Amino acid sequence: MPPRYEVIGIAGLPEVRPGDDVARLVVEAARAQATPLASGDLLVVGQKIVSKAEGRLLRLADVTPSPVAAAMAAGLGRDPRLVEVILRESRRVVRMDQGVLITETHHGWVCANAGVDQSNVDLDCVALLPEDPDRSARALRDDVRALAGADVAVIVADTFGRPWREGLTNVAIGLAGFAPIRSYLGERDPAGRPLQATILALADELAAAAEPVMGKLDRIPAAIIRGLTLPPGDEGSKPLLRDPARDLFR
Amino acid sequence: MPPRYEVIGIAGLPEVRPGDDVARLVVEAARAQATPLASGDLLVVGQKIVSKAEGRLLRLADVTPSPVAAAMAAGLGRDPRLVEVILRESRRVVRMDQGVLITETHHGWVCANAGVDQSNVDLDCVALLPEDPDRSARALRDDVRALAGADVAVIVADTFGRPWREGLTNVAIGLAGFAPIRSYLGERDPAGRPLQATILALADELAAAAEPVMGKLDRIPAAIIRGLTLPPGDEGSKPLLRDPARDLFR
Repeated sequence: MPPRYEVIGIAGLPEVRPGDDVARLVVEAARAQATPLASGDLLVVGQKIVSKAEGRLLRLADVTPSPVAAAMAAGLGRDPRLVEVILRESRRVVRMDQGVLITETHHGWVCANAGVDQSNVDLDCVALLPEDPDRSARALRDDVRALAGADVAVIVADTFGRPWREGLTNVAIGLAGFAPIRSYLGERDPAGRPLQATILALADELAAAAEPVMGKLDRIPAAIIRGLTLPPGDEGSKPLLRDPARDLFR
Repeated sequence: MPPRYEVIGIAGLPEVRPGDDVARLVVEAARAQATPLASGDLLVVGQKIVSKAEGRLLRLADVTPSPVAAAMAAGLGRDPRLVEVILRESRRVVRMDQGVLITETHHGWVCANAGVDQSNVDLDCVALLPEDPDRSARALRDDVRALAGADVAVIVADTFGRPWREGLTNVAIGLAGFAPIRSYLGERDPAGRPLQATILALADELAAAAEPVMGKLDRIPAAIIRGLTLPPGDEGSKPLLRDPARDLFR
């Protein structure tokens, strides 16, 4: 039997509001479309509905930009209140040019605008990344087990750009129930030579696999990945953060 | 019906040698495991077997390093013959530090070692990337149609590292039969605001989706992605190359 797995979008969720129970909404939507969550599934949830449920929303009208944010915004041609929010969500500016602001978030992720996003939220509002996406993933995992009796792994995913290549890809910013890295260290090829390219970012590959069935308009904000055996682990997403000392592009 | 698709590894290929017909090997292996290729499938093929079939192999014993390659190799602690091969395959060195050599290949891809790899080839040999992976993908597509009557899209994939995040992910370095970018430009969210994050690197996400069923030891060097409707296009992989003028990490 060849290895195979399936990717199934979860449609039919209502608009998510602060305080909503995302696990319940996902469990019910999956049931309603006759693909109930089952033990062994990997549940990929878009960051946006997690952020909304956790109340990680800000009104730009309530934000007063600092002088630094105002000066940066002028250089970038961006809204100074938005730049203020991005800086608050960041520990470091990585690049700032051509209207683009790439920062390192307090979690350690490097991405445009610290993941702050204006799409699919009320006008004049912005959505921030979850405060602790690993904690969000663990809570979803626990809640799905309690609600549906299913032992699932969870990825909280967002679409990030990357240098050199056009287009965004979905990546894991939080996870629970498996190890995000698959390592072939110590294994050898048929010629007996140690394998190169031995550390695979499995969680990012699976977040990417979920994106083609997920909708940019929030109508399909989650997906089931079914049929894979995932490596065990309980370190959350941390193993995906490259050690700064080994990063040539800081 | 929720959107869904399946990823199926293709196992049982023999060791690929220069001159082998990869399309025939893949078609026969897919048939033998009772998952024959069908019209509408996306076939993802690992770069290594394509390179081997195309004879893109070099014996390091036949390589004479230039003085530049020898000096760089000394600084990196690498084999000067290997560095010579990497430089020949590159148009530009992007970073060189900590034993790592990141270059831009003649195709325009930025990756470690210009994609030159010593795993899964004979001892003292290295495998180069295909000379024109889009041409390789087109040939595979044409040959599969001729052999199996199936109209498939094709990705030639390799595992590349990336800044900031640990681990490699599978990406598309050549493709045929679809457009690698899915664009939501011009679409609006429920609040009427233009969508952010509107350009998705679909081909890279699907290359990534194939990796978890593909084997690092070359025993499962290809996969079928079945059930997705891909955007039409005939530009090959070129839309995935970021315009250097818009790249902040050159």
